Amino acid sequence: MADSIAAQLMEEIVPALDKSGGKVTVVGVGQVGMACAFSLLTQSICSELALVDVDANKLRGEMLDLQHGLTFLRNIKIDASPDFAVTAGSRVCIVTAGARQKEGESRLSLVQRNTDIFKGIIPKLVEYSPDTILLIVSNPVDILTYVAQKLSGLPKNRVIGSGCNLDSARFRFHLSQRLNVAPNSAHGWIVGEHGDSSVPVWSGVNVAGVRLRDLNPDIGTPSDPDKYNELHKEVVNSAYEIIKLKGYTSWAIGLSVASLVSSIMKNQRRCYAISVNVQGHHGIEEDVFLSLPSVLGENGVTHVIKQTLTAEEVAQLQKSAKTLWDVQAGLKF
Amino acid sequence: MADSIAAQLMEEIVPALDKSGGKVTVVGVGQVGMACAFSLLTQSICSELALVDVDANKLRGEMLDLQHGLTFLRNIKIDASPDFAVTAGSRVCIVTAGARQKEGESRLSLVQRNTDIFKGIIPKLVEYSPDTILLIVSNPVDILTYVAQKLSGLPKNRVIGSGCNLDSARFRFHLSQRLNVAPNSAHGWIVGEHGDSSVPVWSGVNVAGVRLRDLNPDIGTPSDPDKYNELHKEVVNSAYEIIKLKGYTSWAIGLSVASLVSSIMKNQRRCYAISVNVQGHHGIEEDVFLSLPSVLGENGVTHVIKQTLTAEEVAQLQKSAKTLWDVQAGLKF
Amino acid sequence: MADSIAAQLMEEIVPALDKSGGKVTVVGVGQVGMACAFSLLTQSICSELALVDVDANKLRGEMLDLQHGLTFLRNIKIDASPDFAVTAGSRVCIVTAGARQKEGESRLSLVQRNTDIFKGIIPKLVEYSPDTILLIVSNPVDILTYVAQKLSGLPKNRVIGSGCNLDSARFRFHLSQRLNVAPNSAHGWIVGEHGDSSVPVWSGVNVAGVRLRDLNPDIGTPSDPDKYNELHKEVVNSAYEIIKLKGYTSWAIGLSVASLVSSIMKNQRRCYAISVNVQGHHGIEEDVFLSLPSVLGENGVTHVIKQTLTAEEVAQLQKSAKTLWDVQAGLKF
Amino acid sequence: MADSIAAQLMEEIVPALDKSGGKVTVVGVGQVGMACAFSLLTQSICSELALVDVDANKLRGEMLDLQHGLTFLRNIKIDASPDFAVTAGSRVCIVTAGARQKEGESRLSLVQRNTDIFKGIIPKLVEYSPDTILLIVSNPVDILTYVAQKLSGLPKNRVIGSGCNLDSARFRFHLSQRLNVAPNSAHGWIVGEHGDSSVPVWSGVNVAGVRLRDLNPDIGTPSDPDKYNELHKEVVNSAYEIIKLKGYTSWAIGLSVASLVSSIMKNQRRCYAISVNVQGHHGIEEDVFLSLPSVLGENGVTHVIKQTLTAEEVAQLQKSAKTLWDVQAGLKF
Repeated sequence: MADSIAAQLMEEIVPALDKSGGKVTVVGVGQVGMACAFSLLTQSICSELALVDVDANKLRGEMLDLQHGLTFLRNIKIDASPDFAVTAGSRVCIVTAGARQKEGESRLSLVQRNTDIFKGIIPKLVEYSPDTILLIVSNPVDILTYVAQKLSGLPKNRVIGSGCNLDSARFRFHLSQRLNVAPNSAHGWIVGEHGDSSVPVWSGVNVAGVRLRDLNPDIGTPSDPDKYNELHKEVVNSAYEIIKLKGYTSWAIGLSVASLVSSIMKNQRRCYAISVNVQGHHGIEEDVFLSLPSVLGENGVTHVIKQTLTAEEVAQLQKSAKTLWDVQAGLKF
Repeated sequence: MADSIAAQLMEEIVPALDKSGGKVTVVGVGQVGMACAFSLLTQSICSELALVDVDANKLRGEMLDLQHGLTFLRNIKIDASPDFAVTAGSRVCIVTAGARQKEGESRLSLVQRNTDIFKGIIPKLVEYSPDTILLIVSNPVDILTYVAQKLSGLPKNRVIGSGCNLDSARFRFHLSQRLNVAPNSAHGWIVGEHGDSSVPVWSGVNVAGVRLRDLNPDIGTPSDPDKYNELHKEVVNSAYEIIKLKGYTSWAIGLSVASLVSSIMKNQRRCYAISVNVQGHHGIEEDVFLSLPSVLGENGVTHVIKQTLTAEEVAQLQKSAKTLWDVQAGLKF
Repeated sequence: MADSIAAQLMEEIVPALDKSGGKVTVVGVGQVGMACAFSLLTQSICSELALVDVDANKLRGEMLDLQHGLTFLRNIKIDASPDFAVTAGSRVCIVTAGARQKEGESRLSLVQRNTDIFKGIIPKLVEYSPDTILLIVSNPVDILTYVAQKLSGLPKNRVIGSGCNLDSARFRFHLSQRLNVAPNSAHGWIVGEHGDSSVPVWSGVNVAGVRLRDLNPDIGTPSDPDKYNELHKEVVNSAYEIIKLKGYTSWAIGLSVASLVSSIMKNQRRCYAISVNVQGHHGIEEDVFLSLPSVLGENGVTHVIKQTLTAEEVAQLQKSAKTLWDVQAGLKF
Repeated sequence: MADSIAAQLMEEIVPALDKSGGKVTVVGVGQVGMACAFSLLTQSICSELALVDVDANKLRGEMLDLQHGLTFLRNIKIDASPDFAVTAGSRVCIVTAGARQKEGESRLSLVQRNTDIFKGIIPKLVEYSPDTILLIVSNPVDILTYVAQKLSGLPKNRVIGSGCNLDSARFRFHLSQRLNVAPNSAHGWIVGEHGDSSVPVWSGVNVAGVRLRDLNPDIGTPSDPDKYNELHKEVVNSAYEIIKLKGYTSWAIGLSVASLVSSIMKNQRRCYAISVNVQGHHGIEEDVFLSLPSVLGENGVTHVIKQTLTAEEVAQLQKSAKTLWDVQAGLKF
C-alpha cells in the first residue's frame, strides 16, 4: 500500500493481518487439486488458500484464474508458489500430487515413485505447519496415507486419506436413483480399500432407518433378484468409466474432499468413510490404512466406528490389509 | 461418553476437542441478542457459540431452543451460562446487554446505569478472552463503545460499535425501493452518531458508480424536488416506527451484526460504517466513537476511510462529538 | 419509479417483474411464524416472502424490520398485509396462526376455535394460490392438518403438517450429545402424533449404519441399563421445558420448517417425519394425519416410507389415530 | 422404480415430479462450460441442470462425475445428452460452445464459423424452452450475443452476453490488491467491448463512495504518478497471460456466469456489466451488443444504467460499435 491514493483514502489504525486462522493448502494443481480448491472456495470453507506445485507456470495461471473470481465470493486470500513457505500455518494440507501408473509398471514401482515424490512434500508441509492435519488424495490412497504418516511423524489422528468417502458417495447416488429419494436420504457405506477391493456394508444400507436387508435378506448377494450388487459394481467401475470418457475424474473427488475439510475446520464431528490406521480393528494386525467410518473434527479423526461386519466382509478387509502390507514392506524410505 | 453403547459403537483414537477455533460470544439474550445469535448460526459464521445473561432461565430456554435446530445446520457447539467462564477463547464478543431508558430519565443517567452494567461484563470478557474483539450493540452505542474500550483496556482497533451499519442498510433499502435495484447495487453511507443525528453522505450515493448528485445537484437538500432527504428521515424514524409497531427492533440489527462478525472471522476486509475512535478524524479533538466507513478484518478495524465531506457534514460530526464528550465527561467509572 | 433521478439514471428495456417464481407465504407473525420467516430468508430458500396476520401493526413492524436487513442478504422481495391478496402465487403457504389453549379448556374446544380461525385462512390461501402446498405448523398440528385438508379441498399430497420433524431433530440432538457425533450423523426417527404420544422407532436408530439395538437389544426399553428411553422423555418434555423457561419455542421449529420448504422449493426429495394422511398405513382405518417418514418434493409428499414397526409401536400409532379421530368427529366445519 | 425393494420400502401417494422449476442448461462441456456448471451446483443456484455437447463421451463423463458429488450437495437433478430435448423447460440457457481462432484466421471467418455452430444450437434451445433467457459466453461474446439474438428471435431483454462482467471482476480484484480492501468493497466498472478495447470508467471507481478521481484527478491517465492505468492493462492482459500459463481460463468466468444466473433465478435485480443491445445508448446507432451496467432480474435485462462518460470513453464505445457492426454486416445467416 505504498501508493499515494491508498494513503489519501485511508488512515491506518493498525497494519492489516496478512494471515488468517482458516488456512488450507492444496498440493498439486492438476484436475483433482483444482476441483478440491474450487470446491473449498465456492463453499467458503477456508478463508485462505495456498497452492503448491512444481509447475510454476500452471500454478500461477490457476492462482490468477481463481483470484479473478473473488469479487463473486467472500474475500478469500489465495496464494501460490512452488516454495512450501507459502503453506505456513495451514490447518489442513491436501495432497493431490503424484505420478500416474506407466503401462506395464508394477504397483510397487508406482508406489515407490510416489513415495519418492512424497519425500519432497510431506516433511516440508509439517515443517511449515507443525499442527496441520494431512489429507491424502493421491493414489493408491491407502498406501500413500501410510507413507505420509511415516514421513510426517504425525500422530495417526492427524493423517487421513480421502479413501472410500467418494466410493460411498457414488454408492449413495446409485441407491438414490434406484429408490428415487435424495442421496442424503439414502444411507450406505463402502469401506476397506479404495477401488476394486472395496466392501459395501449391506447391513447398514437404509432409508429412514429401514434396513433394505430386512426387506430383502439376499440384498447384495448373487442370488438377489433385484441385483443390488450391481450398484457396487457400478461404483467400482465408475472411476474407470469416467477416465475412459473424459480422461480423469475431478468434480466428485473435489466435493468429497471439501466436505471432509469442512468437518475439520468447523469441528463438526461428522462421520465419513476415510482411510485411517486400522491396526487392531476387525482383527487386522498390519500397520496399514483402510477406510472405516470415522468421526472427523478439528483435531482430525477422534473415533472409529466399530461396524458389525459379516465374516466375509472381515475377510475382505484382512485380505486388503495383507496386500497393502506386502507392498508397503517393499518400500524404501 | 461414559455409556456402554458409545463404547461399543466407537473406538477412541484421541479425545474429541471440546473447543473449536471459531468461537463467538453473545452477551444478552433479549430480542437483539437472539437475532444476532440466530443470524450467526443460520449463516454458519461461527463454529461455536456462547450465550451469557443474568436471567438463567431465559438463557437456558434459548440455548435449548437453538440446540434443537442443530440437525438442520452444520454442527455448531452451543453453550450458555450466567458465568463468563463459558465465553473463554472467543474471537468476537458481542454485547447486547443494557438497561432501557426510563420515562423522564436523562441520557447521562441512562448511560451511567449502563456503564455500571458494563463494569460487570467487559472486564470478565477480556479476562476469559484476552485476544477478543469487542463488538458493542447496546445503546447509546457510540458512548457505550467508548465505555467498553475504557473498561477493557484493549487497543482501539479491537473495540467497535455496530453504529451506523444498520442505518446504512436501511438507507440502501429505501434507495433500492426508489430505484428498483437490489440494495446490494444501491450504494450509500450513513455516518456519524447512530440515531437522530446521523449524517447521510450524499456525495457517495451511487448506482454502478453513477453519483446521484451528478444527476441532481440538489439531492438530499430541502430544495430537491425528488425529496431524497426523506429517505434519511425514514432511516431516522425507522427504529421509532418499528418499536411503536412491534415493541422492539431485532432482525435487521441481527443481520447487520452477523455481517460484521463474518468479516472479522474470515479476515474479509470489507468496509462498514461502524463506530470507531474518531479522535483526529475530520477535525474531531475529543476521545469519542462515531461511525465512519472502516475496513474490518481478523484483527478488528485496521483502516478508516477518509471521506470527502462537506463543511456541513463535518460540522454535524463535530457537534455529535462534543455532545457525546459532554456525556462521557460526566461518567463515573 | 416515477422520480426524475431514476429516469435519468436508467433506461427501461422492459418493466421489472414484480413477482418471482420462488414465493412463500407465512400466515401468523408470532414468534413461530417469524422464526420460520427469518430461517427462510437467512438461508435464501425463497426469493419472495409474503406475511399475513390480523394484527396490522405488528405485521408492518415485522415486515420493515426484515426489509432493513436485505442489504446483508440476497435481494428478496418481502411484502405483508392483512389482506390475503398479498399471498397470490405462493408455492408454499406456512400456517402458524391459531389460538392457544385456555386454562381448563377441553382439547375439542381448542380445536374447534382453531378450526374456526382456519376457515378464515385456508380457503383464502387456496383461492390466491390454487397450486400451493399447505404446510401446517399450528397446534395440535395433526388435527389441524386434517382440518386444513378438508377446508382446502387439496389432494392429500399437497397438505402436510410439520409434525414430528422437530421431535426427530430434538431426538437426534440428544443422541448426538450422548455419542459425541454430529446430529447429522446420529440418525433416528420419531413418528406418530406430535407431542406426548410420539413414538421413537428404536429399530432405525443408527450411526454409520450401525444399529444401536444390535449393540444393546434392550435399547429404549425400561430394562435398558443405559436408559436411552430417557432421550425420548427429554424430547417430549422439551417443549414444556422451553415454554416454562422462555415462554414459547421458536428457533428450532423455524429451522425445521425451513428445511421442509427447501426440499419442496428445490424438488430435493429428502425424507422427513411429517404429518401426512395415514389412512391405510400400519392398519390405521381412520382418516387422520400422523407423522411418518415421507419423501418431500416440488409436488409435496410423493411417497411414505413403510417402516418395520414392532407390535407395540403399531398399537401406539393406532391408539393415536383413534384419539385424533374422536376429536375430529366432534368438529363443526 | 420397478424393483421390488422400492415397492416394499415406499407407498406412492403421487408420482414424483421429474422436472423442477429451477432448471438451467449449459451448452458446451469444455473447461468454461464445466466451470459454469460446477459454480451453479456448489452454490445451489439451480435445482436442475442439463448439459449438452456434441461429444457424447466427454458429456457422459462430466455428467457422471458431477452426479457422484450430489451426496455432498443439496439434491440437484443432473442430466446430459447431445439431444436438445434434454434442455426442455430451462429458465436460463448458457452457451459456451464455439470454435477457437485458427492461426492466421480472420475475425470474420471465426465469427462466421461460430455463427454456423450457433445455427445448430440457438433455435433448438428456443424451441425447447420458449420462455428462456439466453446467456452467451462464447467468444467473441459481443458479436455472438448479437448472432444469438437474431437466430433466436427473442426480445432483447432475454438475450445477454457475459461481456465485461469478468473484466470488471478482474479490475476489482486488482483494485482490492492495491488498496488492501475486499474486492466487494472496491467498486469499479469496465464497459464496452469485452477484451482489448474495453473501457474502464474511472469516474465510478470508489471505495465507500469516495471517488478515487477526487483524490487523484489524473487517475487512469498516462500522467497519473500512481499508474492506475496499469490496472486496466492487467485486466486486458489477464486472459492472454492465463491462457499462456494454463492453456485456458475457466474458474473466474464460471463464477461470473453463476452470479448472473443467480440474479435471474431469484429476481435479485443486481447490476452487472453485461453485453446488451446498445443501439440508442451513448449515441450508438448500430444494432450491436456491448457491455453496460444493467439490472438483471427474472425476465432478463430490464434497465440499462446511463453512465456519465467522458467524450473519450464515448468515442471508444462508438468505435467498438462500428468495428462490431462491420464484422456483423459480413455474416451470413
